[in-house]
Amino acid sequence: MDIVYRPIGKISTPLKNKGDAPIQGVFAPESLGQVEVFSEYSRGLKDIEGFSHLILIYHFHKSRGWTPLRKPFLDDSERGIFSIRHFDRPNPIGISVVRLLGVNNNVLEVCEVDILDGTPLLDIKPYMPKFDVREDAVDGWLGNVDNKKD
Amino acid sequence: MDIVYRPIGKISTPLKNKGDAPIQGVFAPESLGQVEVFSEYSRGLKDIEGFSHLILIYHFHKSRGWTPLRKPFLDDSERGIFSIRHFDRPNPIGISVVRLLGVNNNVLEVCEVDILDGTPLLDIKPYMPKFDVREDAVDGWLGNVDNKKD
Repeated sequence: MDIVYRPIGKISTPLKNKGDAPIQGVFAPESLGQVEVFSEYSRGLKDIEGFSHLILIYHFHKSRGWTPLRKPFLDDSERGIFSIRHFDRPNPIGISVVRLLGVNNNVLEVCEVDILDGTPLLDIKPYMPKFDVREDAVDGWLGNVDNKKD
Repeated sequence: MDIVYRPIGKISTPLKNKGDAPIQGVFAPESLGQVEVFSEYSRGLKDIEGFSHLILIYHFHKSRGWTPLRKPFLDDSERGIFSIRHFDRPNPIGISVVRLLGVNNNVLEVCEVDILDGTPLLDIKPYMPKFDVREDAVDGWLGNVDNKKD
């Protein structure tokens, strides 16, 4: 079964190559971007200015296909692709939490961005702490990596 | 430009109809589900058992098309579709944070589930508090709803 989506917009950032991108946006508060929502979808942006953070869902357009195991950026061991955030996934869908700085008509100014320039946007969802925060979550191999550094 | 994905698995839950589903999984700790990952992708599950929470990305197969404005379940005012989590979106992609209870070969036992039975699975990402938690996030109209109730 094929599932077909269409871009609803485009993300512009100074990150031209994979090597330019921070590992995660939360580590790069100064990393800026613009999210253009195509005009046919812009009415759907109503009320978005009330949120400090958004979840962007997008297509990893630089993905090169997938393998089941891969080394994450933060570790030296091969991990299952569903245990890491790498872009070479069976369905190359990316999600990023970004901070919303402002809304100019159909363009969102954002920061804390780890997304490559020209990335096709698939969806925007409001980040809601009551829905999305799991402070007590245990983070598998990543927790072990940090413990090694302590 | 069409973007084509294929299901990597299927989500089974007791939630047969939209009216059965909790508004968000975090409010329904006892809501159970099974995530079957098709065998061709199962090697990608390595290391996943180390995580307490996963982000499931899936196709809202009961979506009926989209409108720019819609009433969310928790409010009486019409909101922009990108300011709410409703399933009638331009690209009907859903995300849910679920708690991982166990892994049986290619089947994940999960709870805190708000996903309808038979939903096609697109991706699994590990939930990582260091990447995904924004405790200070301001949640727009939802915050106002709560304030009204206080």
